[in-house]
Amino acid sequence: MPGDPAVSPEFPVDENALRVPYDRLKDYMTQVFLALELPDADAEGVARAMADGDLLGKDSHGCIRVPMYIGRIKGGAINKTPNIRVEKQTPAMAVVNGDNGMGHLVARFSMELAMDMAAQSGFAWIGLGHSNHAGAAAVYATMALERDQIGIIACVGSANHAAPYGGSDLLVGTNPIAIAIPAIEEPPVVVDMATTNSSLGKIMVKAMHGEAMPEGWVIDAQGKPITDSALADDGILTHIGGAKGFGLSMMIGFLAGTLNGAAFGSDVIHIGEDPNSETNTGQFIMAIDIAHFLDPAIFKANVDRISREMTGSAKLPGVSEIRMPGTNSWRVYQDRKANGIPITAPLLEKLNAAADELGVARLV
Amino acid sequence: MPGDPAVSPEFPVDENALRVPYDRLKDYMTQVFLALELPDADAEGVARAMADGDLLGKDSHGCIRVPMYIGRIKGGAINKTPNIRVEKQTPAMAVVNGDNGMGHLVARFSMELAMDMAAQSGFAWIGLGHSNHAGAAAVYATMALERDQIGIIACVGSANHAAPYGGSDLLVGTNPIAIAIPAIEEPPVVVDMATTNSSLGKIMVKAMHGEAMPEGWVIDAQGKPITDSALADDGILTHIGGAKGFGLSMMIGFLAGTLNGAAFGSDVIHIGEDPNSETNTGQFIMAIDIAHFLDPAIFKANVDRISREMTGSAKLPGVSEIRMPGTNSWRVYQDRKANGIPITAPLLEKLNAAADELGVARLV
Repeated sequence: MPGDPAVSPEFPVDENALRVPYDRLKDYMTQVFLALELPDADAEGVARAMADGDLLGKDSHGCIRVPMYIGRIKGGAINKTPNIRVEKQTPAMAVVNGDNGMGHLVARFSMELAMDMAAQSGFAWIGLGHSNHAGAAAVYATMALERDQIGIIACVGSANHAAPYGGSDLLVGTNPIAIAIPAIEEPPVVVDMATTNSSLGKIMVKAMHGEAMPEGWVIDAQGKPITDSALADDGILTHIGGAKGFGLSMMIGFLAGTLNGAAFGSDVIHIGEDPNSETNTGQFIMAIDIAHFLDPAIFKANVDRISREMTGSAKLPGVSEIRMPGTNSWRVYQDRKANGIPITAPLLEKLNAAADELGVARLV
Repeated sequence: MPGDPAVSPEFPVDENALRVPYDRLKDYMTQVFLALELPDADAEGVARAMADGDLLGKDSHGCIRVPMYIGRIKGGAINKTPNIRVEKQTPAMAVVNGDNGMGHLVARFSMELAMDMAAQSGFAWIGLGHSNHAGAAAVYATMALERDQIGIIACVGSANHAAPYGGSDLLVGTNPIAIAIPAIEEPPVVVDMATTNSSLGKIMVKAMHGEAMPEGWVIDAQGKPITDSALADDGILTHIGGAKGFGLSMMIGFLAGTLNGAAFGSDVIHIGEDPNSETNTGQFIMAIDIAHFLDPAIFKANVDRISREMTGSAKLPGVSEIRMPGTNSWRVYQDRKANGIPITAPLLEKLNAAADELGVARLV
């Protein structure tokens, strides 16, 4: 299984990668955040969200971010003891002030709130302000599945690596969105995507492992492709579908950022380069309670039927398998839950250096 | 102005096109639908939504559809006297049964409901079932602007012209989404897009005028590009960003279709080919009342600021202007409101043939 690209969507296939059990990885990260003086429950909460990201195959948004978060917490950019709170609320919507806490805590708090509200009202929209980078969006969207709800989260990207369509000024983030829909026998249908052709995290993974990027992910200020992942920081991420992806990204920016009084455009802080400044990151979250629309068993049976129709389609030449969105991640999840999370040599080196820096036990 | 491609986004530039005033075009269509025995207010309502689509530059979704709608109403596929009604409702959401009426009526009813609910609750989600093709999605999303609300609508496409990513079976519609955000001095920011690289309507416009399609819009079952617009019906529309656009399209299908007990996947009726069958089209609509989040004046001033940042970016070589989503449509709107809606010769021929068929006055 580890050699099958179908279960390793982001990391390069590396049969020599260590397989570290989920609990060990989570404990390691809990110790990291305790050493940085986060309260017990918060340290565990951030570590859990990050390890959950790794479990889902979001290699670019899990433990790989430990060094960056250490820098931001040490740099004073993060409030270690936030008072995450509801500032406005109706039966349909709420605004949550994250008080500059770690984004993982703000997002989980808000998703729980959304699900509780949706259980009552059928639907809830939560706007998040004064939040921070929250890791893998799918972690929060998929929380809704076990309650027979549909979960949605979108975020203003935590650095501007893209430009307006036709332009070259870095004013736009990757502005990702995740949506999770439950099924019965088929895997849940889960989208977790940047509105650019690549997320920054995927490029970060490629750079760490010295791999080239496909043409089309990044261009330079002359519009020419850049494929050397080490040079990606000098380039411009391209949007899916050109003007269309730029349009979607603008909408996520206005709805997740501007509507919540959060940053979007030139006031976005580059979290990789500036470890000292508060970001005022914005997100929005939706929860939809299926039973308010129709019998969830009927809904989910139709999700199964449609998933099978799609995956059963005739294939284009050279295609070995048609997959629904999220199937790959779901397989990775099963594999990693059983066999542990693969930690490549360059990643292990970074995580152990972080442990040494903080005086906590190395990962392995 | 008519010769400037910046104000003619879909129709080929044709300086000889007649310019027909909005009111005349709307009256012509009202007479068409009255002749088909729609009630007075409904005939006018459909005609208005269609003419509004033309006014916004959505040439592929306005009066060009008259012959198709005549076929469907005559063919018995549409309920001429629907009882459009709210079937489920909380302060946050509602389910509307369109009773198989013209989609324009169902969508307008639902957007009005959403805006009224959002004025109370800050937010509303409406699921639409037993609806029909509703023309240009932007017509409904932009209704929210004058109330300082944000309008969103997404639809299950009314024919399956796309395939799952990697496949060739036609199981997926263009599944479009429109989002409208108000500004103050800058044009409103409006996305109205298929999740495929082209909408079917844009191809229909090209075919009517004998124009080729750009490579990348349509492929054949071998994955090879088709550029002859007359052959598009034999091809497969491609999704923006490949797997990502397919993922977005699946999500719109589940949320706009399946969640409302409406068609998605193999049970979608091809409205261009089957004039006799009820489609059970699904849509979803959202309205967001900005004042429930923050002062609308602050929000809109920030939309202005960000719009200016984006359009003021340095340009890639060969780019003459950077535009926000919807700016082109907004310019077309100003031009057409002042100078009339351009009706090309092939389109006029179709509209006048339709008038003759129904015994109503020709457009001109």
